[in-house]
Amino acid sequence: MIVVIRSDASKDKQDRLIDWLKSMGLGIHVSVGDYQTVLGLIGDTSKVDIDLIESLDIVESVKRVSETFKCVNRKFHPEDTVVEIGSVKVGGGHFCMIAGPCSVETEEQIVAVARAVKAAGADMLRGGAFKPRTSPYDFQGLKGEGLELLKIARAETGLPIVTEIMSMVDLPLFEDVDVLQVGARNMQNFDLLKELGRTGKPILLKRGLANTLKELLMSAEYIMASGNEQVILCERGIRTYSDYLRNTLDLAAVPMLHELSHLPVVVDPSHATGIARMVPPMAQAAAACGADGIMIEVHNDPIHALCDGAQSLKPEEYADVVKKVRAIREALV
Amino acid sequence: MIVVIRSDASKDKQDRLIDWLKSMGLGIHVSVGDYQTVLGLIGDTSKVDIDLIESLDIVESVKRVSETFKCVNRKFHPEDTVVEIGSVKVGGGHFCMIAGPCSVETEEQIVAVARAVKAAGADMLRGGAFKPRTSPYDFQGLKGEGLELLKIARAETGLPIVTEIMSMVDLPLFEDVDVLQVGARNMQNFDLLKELGRTGKPILLKRGLANTLKELLMSAEYIMASGNEQVILCERGIRTYSDYLRNTLDLAAVPMLHELSHLPVVVDPSHATGIARMVPPMAQAAAACGADGIMIEVHNDPIHALCDGAQSLKPEEYADVVKKVRAIREALV
Amino acid sequence: MIVVIRSDASKDKQDRLIDWLKSMGLGIHVSVGDYQTVLGLIGDTSKVDIDLIESLDIVESVKRVSETFKCVNRKFHPEDTVVEIGSVKVGGGHFCMIAGPCSVETEEQIVAVARAVKAAGADMLRGGAFKPRTSPYDFQGLKGEGLELLKIARAETGLPIVTEIMSMVDLPLFEDVDVLQVGARNMQNFDLLKELGRTGKPILLKRGLANTLKELLMSAEYIMASGNEQVILCERGIRTYSDYLRNTLDLAAVPMLHELSHLPVVVDPSHATGIARMVPPMAQAAAACGADGIMIEVHNDPIHALCDGAQSLKPEEYADVVKKVRAIREALV
Amino acid sequence: MIVVIRSDASKDKQDRLIDWLKSMGLGIHVSVGDYQTVLGLIGDTSKVDIDLIESLDIVESVKRVSETFKCVNRKFHPEDTVVEIGSVKVGGGHFCMIAGPCSVETEEQIVAVARAVKAAGADMLRGGAFKPRTSPYDFQGLKGEGLELLKIARAETGLPIVTEIMSMVDLPLFEDVDVLQVGARNMQNFDLLKELGRTGKPILLKRGLANTLKELLMSAEYIMASGNEQVILCERGIRTYSDYLRNTLDLAAVPMLHELSHLPVVVDPSHATGIARMVPPMAQAAAACGADGIMIEVHNDPIHALCDGAQSLKPEEYADVVKKVRAIREALV
Repeated sequence: MIVVIRSDASKDKQDRLIDWLKSMGLGIHVSVGDYQTVLGLIGDTSKVDIDLIESLDIVESVKRVSETFKCVNRKFHPEDTVVEIGSVKVGGGHFCMIAGPCSVETEEQIVAVARAVKAAGADMLRGGAFKPRTSPYDFQGLKGEGLELLKIARAETGLPIVTEIMSMVDLPLFEDVDVLQVGARNMQNFDLLKELGRTGKPILLKRGLANTLKELLMSAEYIMASGNEQVILCERGIRTYSDYLRNTLDLAAVPMLHELSHLPVVVDPSHATGIARMVPPMAQAAAACGADGIMIEVHNDPIHALCDGAQSLKPEEYADVVKKVRAIREALV
Repeated sequence: MIVVIRSDASKDKQDRLIDWLKSMGLGIHVSVGDYQTVLGLIGDTSKVDIDLIESLDIVESVKRVSETFKCVNRKFHPEDTVVEIGSVKVGGGHFCMIAGPCSVETEEQIVAVARAVKAAGADMLRGGAFKPRTSPYDFQGLKGEGLELLKIARAETGLPIVTEIMSMVDLPLFEDVDVLQVGARNMQNFDLLKELGRTGKPILLKRGLANTLKELLMSAEYIMASGNEQVILCERGIRTYSDYLRNTLDLAAVPMLHELSHLPVVVDPSHATGIARMVPPMAQAAAACGADGIMIEVHNDPIHALCDGAQSLKPEEYADVVKKVRAIREALV
Repeated sequence: MIVVIRSDASKDKQDRLIDWLKSMGLGIHVSVGDYQTVLGLIGDTSKVDIDLIESLDIVESVKRVSETFKCVNRKFHPEDTVVEIGSVKVGGGHFCMIAGPCSVETEEQIVAVARAVKAAGADMLRGGAFKPRTSPYDFQGLKGEGLELLKIARAETGLPIVTEIMSMVDLPLFEDVDVLQVGARNMQNFDLLKELGRTGKPILLKRGLANTLKELLMSAEYIMASGNEQVILCERGIRTYSDYLRNTLDLAAVPMLHELSHLPVVVDPSHATGIARMVPPMAQAAAACGADGIMIEVHNDPIHALCDGAQSLKPEEYADVVKKVRAIREALV
Repeated sequence: MIVVIRSDASKDKQDRLIDWLKSMGLGIHVSVGDYQTVLGLIGDTSKVDIDLIESLDIVESVKRVSETFKCVNRKFHPEDTVVEIGSVKVGGGHFCMIAGPCSVETEEQIVAVARAVKAAGADMLRGGAFKPRTSPYDFQGLKGEGLELLKIARAETGLPIVTEIMSMVDLPLFEDVDVLQVGARNMQNFDLLKELGRTGKPILLKRGLANTLKELLMSAEYIMASGNEQVILCERGIRTYSDYLRNTLDLAAVPMLHELSHLPVVVDPSHATGIARMVPPMAQAAAACGADGIMIEVHNDPIHALCDGAQSLKPEEYADVVKKVRAIREALV
């Protein structure tokens, strides 16, 4: 860690800062320049509070030289992590198509969609049972009942299931779920992350609405530091001043996360764009820049089908996406 | 709600959309223009999923004409809400200065800071016992023990205490806390909000890192819809591309929230700027644009004092802020 | 255009607003609801100042129902525009690879790069002669001399040249340039846009740092409304709170711009990411989501080559990108 | 400047980078750590291209230790700059109220507004003659004629005039204008900035829509480096995901710019919020955090007055703002 001292800092204050840093067991290399003095901190700086130091009156700026994330860091774990869910693998060259409806509504619906997406080439089934909604008046999901319906769909199709957990008090209900999803709004619900770290279950961790890649990796670190190595990262669009699209899909996050970490990276183009007809081109782009999987909303119910609805694709549209995604992956071999 | 239909939409699909909307009990007013048809939806549209309709292929855009927030809405509750914490009042002309350390560390520390801020003019004591940290390796707070120390400081000074709750499983520990704070990262932890709505306790709800005012109000709506009317909103800076400051303090949110809602609005300049020397001018600005209270970090421990540290003010600096904030409020009477 | 009137607006003020709107030649359809009155404006609203109306005290919100852009609008011009630069075509299924160095430095350099990118499969040569730099102390480009060197490189290779114009006073120097680029910082330099609209030359218009798609299209409208139909749009990354990448490449802009407009859309992954090793995956993604062309920085000078430098690729790396981009395009046919 | 080398960089490449840096006349201090090597660059690094170095494959990150702005930097010019416009002074404790209509429309209008704002306590008159508009179909201003009308209003009232220049080709028309305003969209129109640096005239430089404080200061540096020291900075709101307000007024920029630079800082709450009723509280807040002046839109024409319109205040509302702003400034003495 490098600390730049302001040119007008008193010698006395500098000395006290250096003493304090030394008291934390760090070695300090001082280099005096024309306009400022620079301290190089040597040793384990992962517990040093950068915000605290940065805000000191005598400090101009601070730069962390080594990353604070350890478990998720490719530097210390060069090989790709492969997350295994039954016979499905994600990461390290293994590619995974996840599909299903926004919400689980009825047995009929979820089984029908599960069959349709399986036929179209999906490897896993997604579907929301616990739904985080901005408004308390919006449908909050079927909850436990929805989880049971997902399991029925799994039994019918053999597809492993991915579904969102919103609170650790619900954890017992998720005992028999294959992949637990942490939604964007809970990416920094640290208590939930720690608890999920204590389960041995694969976790699909969505990037928060306005979180940086470092913050996403630190949240994955919470899970891994608690003992669970089965983490899949998910880029799902970030909030900007976009006018025609719901969020801005940050696809460059895919190769950058691959460089920083060994964890697999999945892309969700449905939530990122919020518009069904934008999903196929963005799924194709995700495959082309190296994503380890793509999660897409697919519906088959008449209400949505009515008008080719929402951010969800129809099964036949999804089948076409799967075909094109595969063609792109083959073209890049 | 107004739905604009695309000019190239088939008559058949339009009719099916209209039928579906009618089936939800809404009246539909159709007006046909040159380039598009516009549907006016009449009735209770608060349960209509605007995202779903917006994403339909035949829909160009949707505009909600009435707000979905009800309990927090000034339209339906024109008088200012006054939140009462013992003899301290916030809102409706009552102004409140909240101060204390970032984290509760020792009895000695918290009691000393409590005394110092009381002497300087604070009305309530803040201090973190449960600390949300980006990194799992950073100090996570004294937790239950920290809450006990806060109560000791309250007993010594008579100042009511404000402290953050991160998870509903910890709720029993907060029985005797005066104001429960929901941190920025938990603003959309909807399960936590609902649970807090079931307590009768005053809640200080911080705006999320990148959340809009509408989302903040909807989160307050979660608490109020669950039966708790004691909600204080808190602006604490939003994430932008700011280079020299940690976040961007959105002070215009203060008068705008006052226009939209009857709830009191408090400002936290410490977290917004991350730099102690920026806190006084921004506290002054908050008072000048009508905030109902200001929450500021104050420390008295030698480690921070060492270098006039962090985003925390020293007690004597805080006393000066209180004096200036009062002078501004008097000048505006 | 739809104007929602606040519920507490006086009848008198409403009437005066309606009279004023009528005085602008608009028909007004009034529909009175429970909580608000909605005005539907009928006729040519393209000259109505939406910001003015939105800010009136009695107005709750305004929604423009028809787009204000006309010339660039696909609604009024359904077929793709194909921009022709000599034998090179962009748009309407014609794909174009543009490559070259960040700055033109010497004849030797630009000719060597031009030859290398041509051999690798580029269709056009880019290179900066006038350089917009944040700092007045940074290299500002070779200016007129740089344009001459670009023409030499064109003569040597037959590649048409694309280069940035920063000010209309320089226009005479660009007489013999094939494509004039408007940089991100000048996207809303409206006087420059109008002037470029009066030339008959193909214009490559880069999206501004934080501009919406609508603003990009309105800037293209400035050029087209002044008589020049040869406009290529360019997505080059937008400013967000990204930590590891310079900007956030908004690839979903590609299909969305194609839906809104008939103009070709090119992607610049070099400036978007700022890191050479991120360019190939993002170029692949751009091809996969339907871009009409890709503009990439390529260098061959020893200073950059020294360390595989900057956001520029080496010619052999570029050749590999061209191959992969082509493979993806073929896979999607 | 500090350059952090990646742990996997080859010795050979490191040496070549060091040689290249030395060839630029810099001294290099190498410190070898466990996970990376850090280079400290000693000497004049203001011409070193940080983006280039940052993007090298062997470089992990770069940190500039000294600022690249010199002329605007408070470090090298500790006393506040006072810009003098006739008898009006801005900066260094001198406070200035600037007011006037959005656009100059007629002699009657501008003279009437000028008289009204003078009576209310304004020190300078603003009014747009050249109008940057997102749409080519919107009113572009009276241009030269508008400038003449402003001069008439100045002659009638004695108020110096501030008005926007959009292009350097119009410069001769601005000969007799007191303060030339650079609009947000032209903040990085570097050719215009250089040209304005060659005039001796006071420049009011508005912060761009999504520009950082450093970029604003670098743009001021362009003007000062060309020889003009009369620069006033202006915060006018930045683009975020704000829902109820046009832009986000970044008031913390005021004390931060004062810390970084000796130039005066003015705030424009009218454009920042876009809503007249938000202007008074934000003007008060600007005064409370130390702004050197406030620029507000005031109208007196019946069309706007009709509905208390737009982001412009009525003269009597403005008079009240002036009174409150003065009261706050007195309270803070």
